[in-house]
Amino acid sequence: MTYTITIEESSSKKQKPADHELGFGKYYTDHMFILDYDKGKGWHSPRVIPYQPITLDPAAKIFHYGQSVFEGLKAYRTNDGRILLFRPDRNFKRLNLSNARLSIPELDEELALDALLKLLTVDQDWIPSSEGTSLYIRPFIIATEAALGVAPSTQYKFMIILSPVGSYYEEGIHPVKIYVESGYVRAVAGGVGNAKTAGNYAAGLKAQEEASEKGYSQVLWLDGVHKQYIEEVGSMNVFFKINGKVITPALNGSILDGITRNSIIELLKQMGITVEERQISMEEIYQAHQEGTLEEAFGTGTAAVISPIGELHWRDEQLIINQGETGELAGKLYETLTSIQLGRIEGPKGWVVELPKS
Amino acid sequence: MTYTITIEESSSKKQKPADHELGFGKYYTDHMFILDYDKGKGWHSPRVIPYQPITLDPAAKIFHYGQSVFEGLKAYRTNDGRILLFRPDRNFKRLNLSNARLSIPELDEELALDALLKLLTVDQDWIPSSEGTSLYIRPFIIATEAALGVAPSTQYKFMIILSPVGSYYEEGIHPVKIYVESGYVRAVAGGVGNAKTAGNYAAGLKAQEEASEKGYSQVLWLDGVHKQYIEEVGSMNVFFKINGKVITPALNGSILDGITRNSIIELLKQMGITVEERQISMEEIYQAHQEGTLEEAFGTGTAAVISPIGELHWRDEQLIINQGETGELAGKLYETLTSIQLGRIEGPKGWVVELPKS
Ligand SMILES: Cc1ncc(COP(=O)(O)O)c(C=O)c1O
Ligand SMILES: Cc1ncc(COP(=O)(O)O)c(C=O)c1O
Repeated sequence: MTYTITIEESSSKKQKPADHELGFGKYYTDHMFILDYDKGKGWHSPRVIPYQPITLDPAAKIFHYGQSVFEGLKAYRTNDGRILLFRPDRNFKRLNLSNARLSIPELDEELALDALLKLLTVDQDWIPSSEGTSLYIRPFIIATEAALGVAPSTQYKFMIILSPVGSYYEEGIHPVKIYVESGYVRAVAGGVGNAKTAGNYAAGLKAQEEASEKGYSQVLWLDGVHKQYIEEVGSMNVFFKINGKVITPALNGSILDGITRNSIIELLKQMGITVEERQISMEEIYQAHQEGTLEEAFGTGTAAVISPIGELHWRDEQLIINQGETGELAGKLYETLTSIQLGRIEGPKGWVVELPKS
Repeated sequence: MTYTITIEESSSKKQKPADHELGFGKYYTDHMFILDYDKGKGWHSPRVIPYQPITLDPAAKIFHYGQSVFEGLKAYRTNDGRILLFRPDRNFKRLNLSNARLSIPELDEELALDALLKLLTVDQDWIPSSEGTSLYIRPFIIATEAALGVAPSTQYKFMIILSPVGSYYEEGIHPVKIYVESGYVRAVAGGVGNAKTAGNYAAGLKAQEEASEKGYSQVLWLDGVHKQYIEEVGSMNVFFKINGKVITPALNGSILDGITRNSIIELLKQMGITVEERQISMEEIYQAHQEGTLEEAFGTGTAAVISPIGELHWRDEQLIINQGETGELAGKLYETLTSIQLGRIEGPKGWVVELPKS
């Protein structure tokens, strides 16, 4: 595919927030990227334009049938002033897997990455530099055809927006309390749980809200069939260290193939630690806890990188893990992975992509 | 709640399509209704305005997390020039049930109905009058806050748009071929299957597309746990007549509480026919078919009212039902229910709401 990405620079630049005000996903940069799709014509008109509202017919399919996919990754500014992306090729590959599941036309992954680099070049001043901050990147596709029939759309928009985000851990990595959800279900085999699509997140809001009210920061989902097997946390995959071995749920079709998960598995293997990707029940976790062999638990995801789990609430029981402290392994993995992402140490080949100097 | 619905009339009226060009959900009327929600302020500013595109920040939650609900109902023009709605109170009640599941603030059902009547009054010339045509009404709510955190939105829009639609059966009621889906799953107990929310429809697109390619018009979903029990068809509930009795899946939490379903059950009871709302497996349907006791099958929903099923495809077998013809009961129910909806015969109290003459 040949294409030319046009760039229309914004005439007025926004005021940038201070690093300590950032939070998550509240501020957006001066530009965004758009690519249109029309049936018969394919994807066309790639362009970087000033960040602006989008205008859609009220009958646009995204409003009614949720036909959409998205991704999330980060750009980091290094101490020596380089700008690094972490495994962006994996995000665009996953976007296309989500597309296939949602009957959305395939995207040219090279074009998408190229578009991201162009957009980042234009808005690079927005990438914050304080410890722990980064630029969150949100590529997404929405169905825009104005038609109420339930069928795949004939029109789409692929967009990339950028949001400078604060440090996930203001005061250093620390553990979270997680509520094991036995009532609500997020996804089931045969469904869309392994796609990064809007409806999965809408489906999790209620449980998330109820868990928050009880003082838990996120929900740990169980499988929809037996309500026994561990799936994933709200927006993280999950790992358990039992008796020196690390166990994480296998990619079973109903959980997301997390890029942090994949990277952590690789790092663990390099460290010579046994990793088992398999079905794991809450009962097994509970038993290990009772026997004192549940050494650590942690979540993995782009937002927090590693999130140690200090407490699991399951069936009216509180399982305190590692005295509610960050485990040694979780701490080490966090340190290693963030150091790779920030270019402080070398990671496996191809993990880090540097933005070419403009 | 006290409120005043303002009306801003469109200065230019669109050309109306001819009745035979209508199709489904392709044309929209001259006006629409909007109501805004802001946290702290509640629902506010109800207004009928010219039909127009809506403008949203690219970070609006609807684009990323699919927090949304919708409804579908119809207005009919009777032979003697009245305009009738069928059980609209049920739609707004169901909208609020969906809201509760999706963590969307409750809507004032009276205001919603009032808004619909005002909008219909303004756009009543759009209601077609040929046999089988109607005005399809689409109330919906979308999350509009521009924030990427996965949490319920602090801002929403409730809107109603109207679309004149053609006859579902150009040449009289006739049976459809349905594909029983054994791979993909639409919803599972504990999920959002009983809410009318965008993600459920996105989740069904792929299976629907594959069934279409095989020559089937819709998919019959099975339960997500055992993949044995019958749930519902794409956008219809489903009924089977076996040995003189009528059986339909019970409201189990993962199927929609269809308003046509509810009405059909009531009509069947009035006709003295036994109706069982219970779990029913495909195996049972298959056995009944083998034994010759599966007399009829049909779907129920706002779009087609009654859709006789002439063929079910299950596990490489074609089950032909009633020689692929419309069954006597399905035909009679269609005749009765459409006659009630068109004001030709009297239905149960409260089913039909007439638009006050303006
Ligand atoms: C449901 C879900 N699981 C897992 C993850 C972690 O994936 P990744 O490591 O690619 O960010 C995410 C976040 O992206 C997610 O939304
Ligand atoms: C999933 C689903 N089931 C059933 C129905 C039938 O419901 P109703 O009779 O209220 O139109 C619909 C259509 O609204 C639907 O979308």
